[in-house]
This record gives sequence, structure tokens and C-alpha cells, in this order.
Amino acid sequence: MSAANGVKDRSNLVPFSSRLKEGRALAEDVWSIYNVANLPADCINLGQGYMNFAPPKWVTEAANEALQGIAQNHYSHPKGRVRLRQAIKNHYGPQFNRDLDIESEFSSPAAPTKTGDEVIMFEPFFDQYLPSVTFNGGKPVYKPTSNEWTIDLAELRRAITSRTKMIIVNTPHNPVGKVFTRAELEGIAALAEEFNLIVMSDEVYDCLTFDGKEHVRIANLPGMWDRTVTVGSAGKAFAATGWRVGWLIGPPSIIRPTLAATTRIVFCTNSPLQEAAAAGLEQAEQRGYFATQRAEYTARRAILTEAFDKLGLTYTLPEGSYFILLDISNVKFPEDYPFPASVLGRGRDFKACWFIALEIGVSSIPVSEFYCEEHANIGEAYARFAFCKDTDTLQKAAERLQKLKSYIQ
Amino acid sequence: MSAANGVKDRSNLVPFSSRLKEGRALAEDVWSIYNVANLPADCINLGQGYMNFAPPKWVTEAANEALQGIAQNHYSHPKGRVRLRQAIKNHYGPQFNRDLDIESEFSSPAAPTKTGDEVIMFEPFFDQYLPSVTFNGGKPVYKPTSNEWTIDLAELRRAITSRTKMIIVNTPHNPVGKVFTRAELEGIAALAEEFNLIVMSDEVYDCLTFDGKEHVRIANLPGMWDRTVTVGSAGKAFAATGWRVGWLIGPPSIIRPTLAATTRIVFCTNSPLQEAAAAGLEQAEQRGYFATQRAEYTARRAILTEAFDKLGLTYTLPEGSYFILLDISNVKFPEDYPFPASVLGRGRDFKACWFIALEIGVSSIPVSEFYCEEHANIGEAYARFAFCKDTDTLQKAAERLQKLKSYIQ
Repeated sequence: MSAANGVKDRSNLVPFSSRLKEGRALAEDVWSIYNVANLPADCINLGQGYMNFAPPKWVTEAANEALQGIAQNHYSHPKGRVRLRQAIKNHYGPQFNRDLDIESEFSSPAAPTKTGDEVIMFEPFFDQYLPSVTFNGGKPVYKPTSNEWTIDLAELRRAITSRTKMIIVNTPHNPVGKVFTRAELEGIAALAEEFNLIVMSDEVYDCLTFDGKEHVRIANLPGMWDRTVTVGSAGKAFAATGWRVGWLIGPPSIIRPTLAATTRIVFCTNSPLQEAAAAGLEQAEQRGYFATQRAEYTARRAILTEAFDKLGLTYTLPEGSYFILLDISNVKFPEDYPFPASVLGRGRDFKACWFIALEIGVSSIPVSEFYCEEHANIGEAYARFAFCKDTDTLQKAAERLQKLKSYIQ
Repeated sequence: MSAANGVKDRSNLVPFSSRLKEGRALAEDVWSIYNVANLPADCINLGQGYMNFAPPKWVTEAANEALQGIAQNHYSHPKGRVRLRQAIKNHYGPQFNRDLDIESEFSSPAAPTKTGDEVIMFEPFFDQYLPSVTFNGGKPVYKPTSNEWTIDLAELRRAITSRTKMIIVNTPHNPVGKVFTRAELEGIAALAEEFNLIVMSDEVYDCLTFDGKEHVRIANLPGMWDRTVTVGSAGKAFAATGWRVGWLIGPPSIIRPTLAATTRIVFCTNSPLQEAAAAGLEQAEQRGYFATQRAEYTARRAILTEAFDKLGLTYTLPEGSYFILLDISNVKFPEDYPFPASVLGRGRDFKACWFIALEIGVSSIPVSEFYCEEHANIGEAYARFAFCKDTDTLQKAAERLQKLKSYIQ
């Protein structure tokens, strides 16, 4: 036996980290730190963006019907179940003004990047984009949005290099709640065309826009279909975040490789809940489901904004999604508060969110997590509150939040 | 704008392939080629390993109960739902003779390799192992089992280098049906100890062993717990391959990094079907479920083996799993048969399986897919038939297969 074959240091067993320039991607993620399991039992959870109400009865009934079947309990084609693909075609076809091909124009997500590719994302960004890019050997390039949460197109142009492959757009936006205007998307589209870039447009909150705000799809802008992949989600549409059913819509040139990767990474998405999601899309319009849901979320949003108004704190008024960013710069907390190790050494917002969760009894998510380390200071000013909760819970949270008054400088 | 920023060749948009030494991993996979969608409607599907019967009623009822809840429809902790982890602990704890820690000793799958690491897998191997290793930058090293499907330990020793990180074991074995003996596993374990390797033991068919064959867990051999991760599956245990619920059991040192990766790649597994899987594990023993299931599969196996005996063809008699390898070396087919492009240029078994599906009306899977290209010729002698089908279907397939007689040399 050669020396090379000798016993190795067990530290070799710790994988992955060497593949990530961005060490933070495998630091304890914000969702684990602010998980209900780590917070007092009676803390009201406005942190994680999941509902404390059930999916609509008619959708869970469809799931139960699927469970009575045979094929509906077994492997699906990696492309997705035919019924779901047909439902996506019927629901989204008119929105894209296209006769979508259910064989080649959608699939489930996987990031189409290779080593060295650069992906531009606007800050703040949904934190899961980061590992999706870096796990695939890509390099994220961050463009902070301005203080008014608008895109600086000149700066975006300067960020594009010969290695740039993709721009990630997210509208309606998590965590800002911004719905991109047609003009903004036209500006991004023009640069994508000029530099031949793919656009991944995360539109999982497309059914949650408020005050009549128009949801513009960048894929519908002239020339953009062929370079855009649009992401949708049954979890957001039907209050079923734990179903893990979503879809990509785009041209075969982009869908084909994501499908190949999906086949090899997860093979397929669970079958019975695909059937239920199909039923959801099939019946949503005739039931007026999305309109009702928008009205409900508008009322939920109002409960929190009124609470923040009473406190005299500033916040983003979301045009879409179910998040509000509260400016916590003026919220004072004792520096010697017994913070856990997972929060120490992170941004001021990590401490503020921890303090608010434990002392006020309402949890939220620190926004510096949605920025790269270099720009984390921008996010430190904010805490993200989710209003995808029933009105009783939100009322109770609103009352508790008034206790913040004594901590405002 | 510099030239480097100019319009690029659109072929850049095709991703992934450059990351794979093993081009075949993104060639059309065997599951897509022999998908029912590509075969005549009346072809009996003994190809893909999913059941044509439903999960047990009491398990789907548990799924429906979960659908009536709230939290059961929303995000789960990436570690898995507490109820499922508790059920895994209670079900597997005695089998591993350990008081399993539900916080640190299981999680959902992801491959713990990094670039340059070598992973040893025995041929034939379940084809999905290959991209799991190569997508993570690892290098697979293949060790064909002998003609008698036994492991040559001297050869295994020679295959180990300073870069070797992991050995993949699969017992009961797909596609061979072999259940590894204690002596074989002890031989592998000794080498894993000597060279400080991780063992990934895929035991998703652990509840499907026949003729009283003992299922030995390599994690239970002396010293092996700390270096072994054992894979289990609700899909195989409860006839629900489309539920996509599985688990890893092992020491925190291995589970921790796989959990970190899982959190970032899929975040979590679907929630309602985790609840149902929990109910399955909770009640299986008192219902005598696994014993009944083993008896049913033994009867199913007999239908196919009798058919092959009548034909005078040789095959593997599976000790576990639900696959039989039929030796098709002597099955003759016309070279000018109208084979589709996806089959041409692959092994002889690809053609044989296509011919049998179209002319005999029974689909199977070519076994060269379970070998690396260099050793594909070994697999070419076999077609894999799955007997996870109801007895009527298997009887009908057995009758049809008698027509093979006229094609045997």
C-alpha cells in the first residue's frame, strides 16, 4: 500500500464549502436561525413566508382525489404530469399570448449556469438565488437597487462583462414588494438583447398584486420570449407552500437543459400534489379565486401598515407579494442583550429581529441576508414582515408591535 | 462597449455538458426512451420500477388527513417533519440498535462529494448515481461485479486511491436483486476503515427481501456507524413512488453537510406526504404490512420466473428488490428492424428491449445503462424486468413472453 493510500484527515469529510467562494451560502441560513423551533412558543411568526391558513378546500379535495388513483401516486414524467402541463398551458397561454407547447415549453426549476458564468441579481434578492448560482459554479454579480428601490440601468450596463450569462428579475419582488414597471423591464430587456443574456424572471407572486397594479411579464416584451424563463409556483398561488410544486415557462432552448438537470437531480416532482395544482389552475378563474385572494391580502396588508403608521416608522408599501420591509434604524435595543451565537457577528438587523421576536413577541427576518456581504449594511436598516397570515393573527401582532414605541429613538 | 461585450454565439446557452466528463449522463436517459409515452399503448410496462397498484388505503387516508391541516400543507423543516423523524427513529432505531437523534441523525439526500473526489460504485449500478456524483464534480470509479454478481475485494482494494472518498453499496440491489451477505459487507467495511472512506448504503428495498434472506445493514458492522449513511424510501416501502419522500440515516458528521445542501437545493420535501409516510412507518408493524407485502412480491416474482423457465432462458433469481435480469444473449431480432434514433448507437440490449416491447408487447430496461461505457458490453446480455405489478398484469405479460420462443437461437 502506498503512502497516498494512507489514513486521511477526517476533515476531508466536510464537503461543499470548497466549492463556494461565498462561504455564507453554507453558514446557518436565516430560515433556520429564525425558525419557530428556536423562538418562544407564543411568538407570532411573521418571519417565514408561509400561511397560517390552509389551501382552499376545493384544491385539497382534488389532492385527495388524486390519492385515490394509481398513476397519480407514482413517478411523474420529469416534465410534469400531463394534466398539470395542460392546466398551465390554459392558464398562462393567454397571459403570454402564446399557444404554449406542453412538451417543450415548461419544466421544473434548475439553474442553467456553468462554471465561470456570471449571473446578475439585484439587491435585495431572495437569498436562495445565491446557492443556486454558486452550486453550479457560477459567479453572482450584485446590483443594489437605489434607495427608492429603482434600477439604475447605466450601472446595470457597467456590470455586464463577457462572462455574463443571465440576469435574475423578481417581480412582484421578495422582500421589497415592488412590482416592476413596464419601463423598467423594457430597460432590462434592451440590455439583455444587446448583450445576448438570458433572463430568469421569478414571478411566483404574480397572482398577488394590489391596488390594481399591473403585473408585466418581461417574456412578453418584443424579442424577449426566446431568452426568458418565467418561474411560477403553486405554493404561492394556492396557499400550499409545503407542496413543492412549481414550474418554468420558456422556450425549448432554455427549458431543455433545465429539464435534463431536473431529471438527474430530483427526477420528478411529487405526483398527487401536481394533480391538485392542476385542479387549482383549472378552476381558479370560474371561482373568482385570485380576485378574492387579492382582496384578502389587501386587507391583511392594511393591518400591518396601520400598526407601523401608528408607530411612526417608515416602511415599503408593497405593490405585490406578501412582505413589508420595516425601517428599524430607529429601533433601539440593549447591546448586552443575550443574543444567541447564530446572531452575533451578523448585521445589526439580525440582533434587532431577535430582540423584537423575544421582547415584542413578533418574529421577522433580517434583510441584510438578502444582500451580499459587501452591501449588507444597506439591508441592516430593515426587517421583513410577512402578512400571509389570517387577520386575527395579524391583529394580535399589530397590537404587540405597539410595544415597540418605547424602543424607538 | 468592448468587443468582449459583443453578441455571443447562442450555443453558449446550452449549459451543463461542459461540467460532465461523462457525456452520457445528459444523453437521453433510458427512462425517457422506454417511457410508456414512446411505446404502443397496449404494451405491458415491466420497464420502469413503479407499481400499477395504489398505496395502502390506510396510508393514503393519512395523507388526506394531513391535507385537512394547516401546517401540514406548508414548508417543512429541511430536516423533515418532526412526526416523520419520530416515526423513522421508532421504526429504524431497533434495526440499527441505536437511540437515533431526530435532530442530527437523519435528513434528505444530497451527494457529499467535491471536485476531484472519487466515488467507487459496483457495476451494475442504479444509473442515477452517476450524475449525482458527476454533477458534484466527483469522479466515478467502476468495479464490475463478477459473473456470479460477487465483489472481488482484491480488485476493490486496487481501485482505492488517495482521492477516493466514498463507496456506494446498494443492498437489496437494483437491478441484480442481490442481497449482500454479511461476509461481503464485512470485506467492504474493512477497506472503508483502512482507507477512511464514507459508505453510502442505498437500502431503499430493505423491506423487500425474499425466502427469509437476511438484510444486513453495513452501518451495523463494528466501527461502521460513523462512516455510513443509509438511504431509505417511502416510495418503495408504501407503493408510492410518486410521493418523493425518502431519508438518510447516519452520524451527524455526514448528515450535517447533506442537510446544508438539501436546504439550498430543494429547501424541503413536500409536507403532506411526509405525514403520510410517518403514518405508514407508525402502523406498519401492527398491521403486519411488510410481511404481507413480502409474500405478495414473492408470488409476483414466481409468475415471471416460471415464464422464463418455460422459455429455457437464464435469469437472476432476486433475493430482494423487485427486479429480474433476463439473459437475452440468445434472443435474436432482425438487424434491420425499424429502431428509433434514441436506440441506435447504444448497446445490443437497447435494441433487444425495443424489439421485445414492440413485437412481444412487454417493456423492459436495457442493463448496459447500468454500466460505464467501457463495461457496457457486460450489461448488454441482460434486460431488466420489474415485477412491482399486480398479478393479472404479470400473468398477461408471462403469456405474451412465451412468444419469445420463436426468437430464441
